[in-house]
Amino acid sequence: MSDSSNEISRRRLLGTVGAAGATGLVLGAAGGAAAHAAAAGEPVTALATVGSATEAFHGEHQAGITTPMQSRGHLIAFDLTAGGRPADGRREAVALMRRWSTTASRLMAGEPMDDGDTGVALDAGPSSLTITFGFGRTFFDRTGLASQRPAELDPLPAFSSDQLDPRRSNGDLWVQIGANDALVAFHALRAIQKDAGKAARVRWQMNGFNRSPGATAGPMTARNLMGQLDGSRNPKPAEPDFDRRIFVPAGGPHPWMDRGSYAVVRRIRMLLDDWEQLSPADQERVIGRKKSDGAPLTGGSETTELALDRTGPDGKLIIPDNAHARISAPEQNGGAAMLRRPFSFHDGIAADGTPDAGLLFVCWQADPLKGFVPVQRKLDRGDALSTFIRHESSGLFAVPGGPKDGEYVGQRLLES
Amino acid sequence: MSDSSNEISRRRLLGTVGAAGATGLVLGAAGGAAAHAAAAGEPVTALATVGSATEAFHGEHQAGITTPMQSRGHLIAFDLTAGGRPADGRREAVALMRRWSTTASRLMAGEPMDDGDTGVALDAGPSSLTITFGFGRTFFDRTGLASQRPAELDPLPAFSSDQLDPRRSNGDLWVQIGANDALVAFHALRAIQKDAGKAARVRWQMNGFNRSPGATAGPMTARNLMGQLDGSRNPKPAEPDFDRRIFVPAGGPHPWMDRGSYAVVRRIRMLLDDWEQLSPADQERVIGRKKSDGAPLTGGSETTELALDRTGPDGKLIIPDNAHARISAPEQNGGAAMLRRPFSFHDGIAADGTPDAGLLFVCWQADPLKGFVPVQRKLDRGDALSTFIRHESSGLFAVPGGPKDGEYVGQRLLES
Repeated sequence: MSDSSNEISRRRLLGTVGAAGATGLVLGAAGGAAAHAAAAGEPVTALATVGSATEAFHGEHQAGITTPMQSRGHLIAFDLTAGGRPADGRREAVALMRRWSTTASRLMAGEPMDDGDTGVALDAGPSSLTITFGFGRTFFDRTGLASQRPAELDPLPAFSSDQLDPRRSNGDLWVQIGANDALVAFHALRAIQKDAGKAARVRWQMNGFNRSPGATAGPMTARNLMGQLDGSRNPKPAEPDFDRRIFVPAGGPHPWMDRGSYAVVRRIRMLLDDWEQLSPADQERVIGRKKSDGAPLTGGSETTELALDRTGPDGKLIIPDNAHARISAPEQNGGAAMLRRPFSFHDGIAADGTPDAGLLFVCWQADPLKGFVPVQRKLDRGDALSTFIRHESSGLFAVPGGPKDGEYVGQRLLES
Repeated sequence: MSDSSNEISRRRLLGTVGAAGATGLVLGAAGGAAAHAAAAGEPVTALATVGSATEAFHGEHQAGITTPMQSRGHLIAFDLTAGGRPADGRREAVALMRRWSTTASRLMAGEPMDDGDTGVALDAGPSSLTITFGFGRTFFDRTGLASQRPAELDPLPAFSSDQLDPRRSNGDLWVQIGANDALVAFHALRAIQKDAGKAARVRWQMNGFNRSPGATAGPMTARNLMGQLDGSRNPKPAEPDFDRRIFVPAGGPHPWMDRGSYAVVRRIRMLLDDWEQLSPADQERVIGRKKSDGAPLTGGSETTELALDRTGPDGKLIIPDNAHARISAPEQNGGAAMLRRPFSFHDGIAADGTPDAGLLFVCWQADPLKGFVPVQRKLDRGDALSTFIRHESSGLFAVPGGPKDGEYVGQRLLES
């Protein structure tokens, strides 16, 4: 690197801003010790809080939905193994959800498993670990709970660009694990698998990642492996309609889903060898936003509204007709909105020599028919980005509200 | 988590110790802006330095050997494509090493590629990025440099426990990428692939990880996916014989390797489903050390010497005859020592349902016949751990010393 003092000042400035941003991130972690310390006016040494930050297992919502994105994630789906009588399936599911809840509660607090802990997370703090549980459509028949299955779990429509692998799609049960340390996340994954025992077998499992805390100069929208900011239009918790868009309101037909949410999970392969052939300017026209800062091509900053009707000197729309940002804009979709909270994935090089990389797309909404589905239908008809991506798997899961003290996740369903 | 003040104090204590440890880590980053700031007596805000920390591209040694372990890594091997005359291969190799050196120098300083940068690292600092280059045995014939091939690159002996996949082994060229941010590392990987152009094709590529900075309460030995501390007996830079064990001394038969090192790279699969069937006490007997803190079973702390002859009340050796720590101990191997600097890997679930996970073992030494080979020979004959691991690939690479200002990596070889 350059030793010039300008260079050093630039880096130092970045560093200073980064610290403030990181503190904000920690304060976002409900129940974290660091938040307690900061609230008490005591200094928070930011790097130390990477390990010690905790997310709450109990609460109105499960953790891992509005939790700030974590640097490492695992998604895993299981099918129940109990054959025969649904009553057996339900009994095993109750026992499994109890075990999983006990383990999630302990691990998220930085404690080892009750029994037979592998030790992989020793030395590290919980590192903002979250473990989030969901039920797939097929769960309900196997447990004799078909009457409790929400219509929101009806199969997603087929999209013309789908090339879905059923072996990596759906599942009776889904678990999302996130943490700011890879070994903490792996430890939790193995613990969840161990708890499954003979009651459930793994259907599919995927690994993902995001930026490390402290790598950027403050809190920011995630950047994906195409080099684009990803999630610029995400609803923000401070917005008045955030809650009703993301979380199921109380008083619906299935009380067990009160304050829960629905997760749509898609493995979206990025055809990076093709994408990287485009010039940066062409990439920006595909997206409709600038790579550098995510600002619309019509100007402003990342948070500026798209000027969808504005034309350039040549009379053409500045944000092209088929630009991804135009087609997915909430104002183009009757206000449809979802909370996108993805991980990137990179599983090395595929058999055809291209990178097996892309986005583990995870989005959250109170109703998939008002979130993912209308937007994806629109994208499916004319998104310039569709040439460069391929949906390889799909899942839809009902994620119940957070457990109260003494409850296990899903208790209100399984004991209904 | 518990809200008790005991719990908060415990976490806060961890946090404080962690900050000190992290500062140490940053100071270890030669040439980093944070190190400049600290040397000037200015405060270093530790989390911010995750992104802004830099490693020097130019220097006596290449970066990525004594650099503190990074949270994310990629290993990639290439074969030169030039057929026909070795002079063509050499000319292309010169151009490639120039391109790679320019890119490595820029990216390690936090700058984009000269041309066609993907933007994936935008916003983030260099995050201690290192890019390290090595030459495999087959490189020399293809470039007409057979007379410059060191005897140290002679093929490693076969070991009885090897189940090596030749498609994931060896290669003309090897590149190790490490960074404390996954997107920064991925960005560098794509840049290196882009630079390869038509001159070299990818032979194999692997992804790995280690603990995040700040996840633990201070600098510590890495923990692997078996839950064991890994590298307790690593030579330390402060030890008087560190340099001669790890780096090739000047004045040898191949001046281009002066101050270079040899890397042995093995993909070691861990049979975790079997391993996790063992009780923690049985696991400790396999290793000869305690899981909690890495102390020998004969007592003390991680740094205490093994009391290899000590017996228990039953008259048996406390550290069993076939314990991994006994067999690999330098004093049992004529002082053979190597610097182990691995990444863990986890590529999801294999076709047989077991986790495709383990260790991307990378070790560094001045001479493999005095480092890796004698230790592995010994392990091969009676290591209790061998039941639980499988060597799936192998590579051996000559990593020349670091480039001087204005030089590219390998210039002293290619222009000899």
